[in-house]
Amino acid sequence: MRAEIEQQPQALRVTLDALFPRAADVAAAAERTRHVLFIARGTSDNAAVYGSYLLQVHAGRLATLASPSIATVYRARLDLSGVLAVALSQSGQTEEIVDTLMWARDCGARTIAITNRGGSPLSEAADVALITRAGTERAVPATKTFTTQLAALAVLGIGLGANVDAGQLRAVPDEIERLLAAPMDLDPVVAELATVVGAVVSGRGFAYSAALELALKLKETCYLHAMGLSYADLLHGPIAVVGAATPAIIVAAGSGPTLDPSIALARRVTRSGARAYGVGGGDPLARACSRALPGPRLPEWLAPIGLIVPGQLVAEALARKLGIDPDNPRGLTKVTQTV
Amino acid sequence: MRAEIEQQPQALRVTLDALFPRAADVAAAAERTRHVLFIARGTSDNAAVYGSYLLQVHAGRLATLASPSIATVYRARLDLSGVLAVALSQSGQTEEIVDTLMWARDCGARTIAITNRGGSPLSEAADVALITRAGTERAVPATKTFTTQLAALAVLGIGLGANVDAGQLRAVPDEIERLLAAPMDLDPVVAELATVVGAVVSGRGFAYSAALELALKLKETCYLHAMGLSYADLLHGPIAVVGAATPAIIVAAGSGPTLDPSIALARRVTRSGARAYGVGGGDPLARACSRALPGPRLPEWLAPIGLIVPGQLVAEALARKLGIDPDNPRGLTKVTQTV
Repeated sequence: MRAEIEQQPQALRVTLDALFPRAADVAAAAERTRHVLFIARGTSDNAAVYGSYLLQVHAGRLATLASPSIATVYRARLDLSGVLAVALSQSGQTEEIVDTLMWARDCGARTIAITNRGGSPLSEAADVALITRAGTERAVPATKTFTTQLAALAVLGIGLGANVDAGQLRAVPDEIERLLAAPMDLDPVVAELATVVGAVVSGRGFAYSAALELALKLKETCYLHAMGLSYADLLHGPIAVVGAATPAIIVAAGSGPTLDPSIALARRVTRSGARAYGVGGGDPLARACSRALPGPRLPEWLAPIGLIVPGQLVAEALARKLGIDPDNPRGLTKVTQTV
Repeated sequence: MRAEIEQQPQALRVTLDALFPRAADVAAAAERTRHVLFIARGTSDNAAVYGSYLLQVHAGRLATLASPSIATVYRARLDLSGVLAVALSQSGQTEEIVDTLMWARDCGARTIAITNRGGSPLSEAADVALITRAGTERAVPATKTFTTQLAALAVLGIGLGANVDAGQLRAVPDEIERLLAAPMDLDPVVAELATVVGAVVSGRGFAYSAALELALKLKETCYLHAMGLSYADLLHGPIAVVGAATPAIIVAAGSGPTLDPSIALARRVTRSGARAYGVGGGDPLARACSRALPGPRLPEWLAPIGLIVPGQLVAEALARKLGIDPDNPRGLTKVTQTV
């Protein structure tokens, strides 16, 4: 897992080189569609959350997440004409995702696949396949396949006409490289997290996807009761869980309209006597938290690609400290099949 | 909270009497729309999950959940013509929900409000308001406002042409009354849950909404690290958390295509040495679990209205056992405002 975290700058470079020229294919596949429907599970679902913010905020398209069991369990017939279905699966082999994409196509949707495997059932089933170039991922917890999925979604956004600066996307691999090389004092954070039974991981807007993914990493790699929650959902009930034994981890981009509410949340948590750990958010968030890890110097629309990196490093180090093999958590396999 | 749990049969009766005649208004408001977009947070969001399954499985309409921050934080302009936006808020006063519904209307959507307060900002902002008749809810954790929201959503489904038997909906209040009066041995379940630090609450399809709501009740009322997860999402990572100290609570309707996978999940959990608690699912699920609580005798499309009831009783009793006042959990207020 550690080696694969370090491979991310290179995986992102190769992926972006391969996918930038595909933006025109995306545009062609999306013709006469309006609503984007993401189909995914697990880590890919967290990537889809990023895609939904990107397309809605910057490409003016309604973009929401599908419930695959509508297709695979209930076999519902919907009219999906005018819908662009985008399915994400690292392996391209998870039957539930392949079946749901084929169902969407049969219901009239145009289809795009984002997967790390060319020639996989998922890539073969879609009108257009965006193949990420993360290389083989051996550790069960996904790292480089997640960040390259985000890069593919950024290209999807550009293909769908997002009002963003594509040059900023090209600069992402170098920035992830810089972040990985910069000093990051994980030890105090890891030592403290080793003593807690659970944590709330919160992020808003674009950063929400990174918060969900960090929570998933802590659950699957460290068996920690980590709940990924948007800022607003946290306040609607689960804030009651935060206390002396349950810290909050607050993930935020260094700029954008969600930074100030994230800082206010950190202050509220520390005032209540609980610990708050900041990930990203620059100095203002770090000052409001008990401890903080630096995030990437990226604009808000690209920040999640870097914001997950300190979280990956924490999950990997925390697992080792807890005596867990981060590469092979219990109960999990690399390709998940559900019935 | 306990008194309000007991009031649910009567609250459902009055709500259904008031809302059955409104199905035609729903149909009129929905004319020339296709996709349904739910706008909600917290308990209302869990109700919306029920609505999304009902409309997709039985009314042939794509129905997904909105991210309110797209409207309130990012002020994105989307083309929502052809969209029916349905906003849910107990109080009808949560600004984020009111603002998002008005944003949807300004983007071209038709609008419906489901709220317990006639004359509230939310009911005034919508083309059609379905006012639930739960009466005043004093306890902070929502109970009767949740089940009456589900009833309102069932009426919404009928208005949108769902292929269901409306007579089954009329029979729901009596069945909830029977369930509340039937013997239910909560003590052993409560005693065991009082010793755990967390739990995974899982349900699939229609039952997923009840699983999410039970997890929220356990978080806000008992400060328990309870994770509500669909069956498939559980297998994509979080299954690693289930172990000797972290039981699974499995919620299932007594019939339908998700019952067998729910039984298989219970067997997998108990085989691994962890405890599984069943809620509903009839004798077959009970036999596969360490302990079980009876669910309602309702068809799958209505089961969530009854499946949450044993969960409400467990949360209330567990809070008292833990020395928490279930009516006033820490950090929460009855109307949640987020910025």
